[in-house]
Amino acid sequence: MKIRPLADRLVVKRTQEEEKTKGGIIIPDTAKEKPLEGVVVAVGSGKALKNGKVVALDVKEGDKVLFGKYSGTEVKVEGEELVLLREEDVLAVFTK
Amino acid sequence: MKIRPLADRLVVKRTQEEEKTKGGIIIPDTAKEKPLEGVVVAVGSGKALKNGKVVALDVKEGDKVLFGKYSGTEVKVEGEELVLLREEDVLAVFTK
Amino acid sequence: MKIRPLADRLVVKRTQEEEKTKGGIIIPDTAKEKPLEGVVVAVGSGKALKNGKVVALDVKEGDKVLFGKYSGTEVKVEGEELVLLREEDVLAVFTK
Amino acid sequence: MKIRPLADRLVVKRTQEEEKTKGGIIIPDTAKEKPLEGVVVAVGSGKALKNGKVVALDVKEGDKVLFGKYSGTEVKVEGEELVLLREEDVLAVFTK
Amino acid sequence: MKIRPLADRLVVKRTQEEEKTKGGIIIPDTAKEKPLEGVVVAVGSGKALKNGKVVALDVKEGDKVLFGKYSGTEVKVEGEELVLLREEDVLAVFTK
Amino acid sequence: MKIRPLADRLVVKRTQEEEKTKGGIIIPDTAKEKPLEGVVVAVGSGKALKNGKVVALDVKEGDKVLFGKYSGTEVKVEGEELVLLREEDVLAVFTK
Amino acid sequence: MKIRPLADRLVVKRTQEEEKTKGGIIIPDTAKEKPLEGVVVAVGSGKALKNGKVVALDVKEGDKVLFGKYSGTEVKVEGEELVLLREEDVLAVFTK
Repeated sequence: MKIRPLADRLVVKRTQEEEKTKGGIIIPDTAKEKPLEGVVVAVGSGKALKNGKVVALDVKEGDKVLFGKYSGTEVKVEGEELVLLREEDVLAVFTK
Repeated sequence: MKIRPLADRLVVKRTQEEEKTKGGIIIPDTAKEKPLEGVVVAVGSGKALKNGKVVALDVKEGDKVLFGKYSGTEVKVEGEELVLLREEDVLAVFTK
Repeated sequence: MKIRPLADRLVVKRTQEEEKTKGGIIIPDTAKEKPLEGVVVAVGSGKALKNGKVVALDVKEGDKVLFGKYSGTEVKVEGEELVLLREEDVLAVFTK
Repeated sequence: MKIRPLADRLVVKRTQEEEKTKGGIIIPDTAKEKPLEGVVVAVGSGKALKNGKVVALDVKEGDKVLFGKYSGTEVKVEGEELVLLREEDVLAVFTK
Repeated sequence: MKIRPLADRLVVKRTQEEEKTKGGIIIPDTAKEKPLEGVVVAVGSGKALKNGKVVALDVKEGDKVLFGKYSGTEVKVEGEELVLLREEDVLAVFTK
Repeated sequence: MKIRPLADRLVVKRTQEEEKTKGGIIIPDTAKEKPLEGVVVAVGSGKALKNGKVVALDVKEGDKVLFGKYSGTEVKVEGEELVLLREEDVLAVFTK
Repeated sequence: MKIRPLADRLVVKRTQEEEKTKGGIIIPDTAKEKPLEGVVVAVGSGKALKNGKVVALDVKEGDKVLFGKYSGTEVKVEGEELVLLREEDVLAVFTK
């Protein structure tokens, strides 16, 4: 089961933090700063303009994006933690 | 008697929580976190644009949707608890 | 004397609560939760768009509607308590 | 000397309250609830739309109107207390 | 030296209060309620619409106007106290 | 090195206050009320409308303007204190 | 790896502060006021208008800009501290 975001929303999977320090100590969840980076796993059909037209999103599936720490809504789908963002919450896209 | 939501609103029936723990203990209502998932049971006629046109909703009857915990208005119609949402409160639609 | 609501407003008569418990005790007014249901007794001429056009309301006289507990303004016209709502405060219309 | 309200504003003269109880006791001003009814004594030239067009008001001079208790600005012109309202503060018009 | 207000602004000279009571006592400035009336001494070139057109103001130089006690900005130009208002802060114009 | 303000912004040099009282006492900076007058030293290319057109500013380089005491952002460019305003923060232009 | 800002955003590298006083004392980070100047290192594809058109930004890569101290979002990309701004947060561009 997958989720399809609506309109100008997108689903992002946050980049996995390293769960252990080099010495092997497990860092409890609250001690790690949540990353600002993620990979887009699904995008909505586009942003609806006031005149009814729909503009496709600039961000594509697979893009690695940068987003604000307090943007969006976290959801858990089949045990996987995802973030639902609006495209305007995406600050920038990483390019190689 | 049914309800017809207006404009860009939709009626959602929240997915039923398990009312008992495995040992059979009944969890009182306030101890359960309200679910973020529901099934759409009725949709409005569409979102009215500023120029007077109406755009049909992207969400259809029967869709399983994800919505914010504090979105919408809860109503009780003939003993059934429903949630009245605007389409923009729907974060994503589940697809199989 | 009747009242004609302006623009996208409508006048609703709240559905009468049962004034007595089964044992015949009269419940004072403040002890009853105000109902969320009502019957539309008058509708305005329509919602004015920014370009000057007017769109007729989707709700008609006689419709039984559901509205938020804190929406609108209560008025008393010739001893009758009415609620003045904007159409967007109407959550849904009951259908048979 | 009269006043001409601008644009979508109108001047309302509140309906006079009974100044005495039946026994003849004068009720001081602050003990009376200010009425919600009034008669329109002047209307502005119309509401200016964003595209520059002007739409005439739906309320006419002489209409008896219902308006929110805290709407508008009270002014005193030649000893007469008037209320300056925007048309959208008018909830409804009385019809016979 | 004069001032030219921009766009939909206008310059108003407040109507002079009586500086003495009948017995000849000078009322200090803070004890007098500032008047709500004034005479327009200059008007801007007009309100710019979103589409770039400019609409001339409805208020003219020389008009006696009524404005909210807390509207606008007070300025002192060559010793003369003036009020800079936007046209929408003008409640009404006096007519003879 | 100069600065070019963007869009509907303009750069204003505040009119110099008298730094001494008549007796020759230097007034420390915080004891003087900051002036509301200034001379425009640079203007942006114009205000962008929602439809993409750009409207040239009404205020020109060299204009002596009046602006709100708390409007804009103060910047120091090569030791010179300037104020960056949006055109709508300009209340009026002085004319001779 | 570089970052591409979306829409009307741009990436700015703040102008490096002097890390030592003349006597060679290292000033800790919090003791230095963050500069208001920076060099644009990347710009978005343009600002999307409400009608769907996209207007290219007025600020170009390499421009030295002035921006508000509390504007934008700071990000660290490969050890380099950058600021993500919207074009409207850019107060002015330096010209030679």
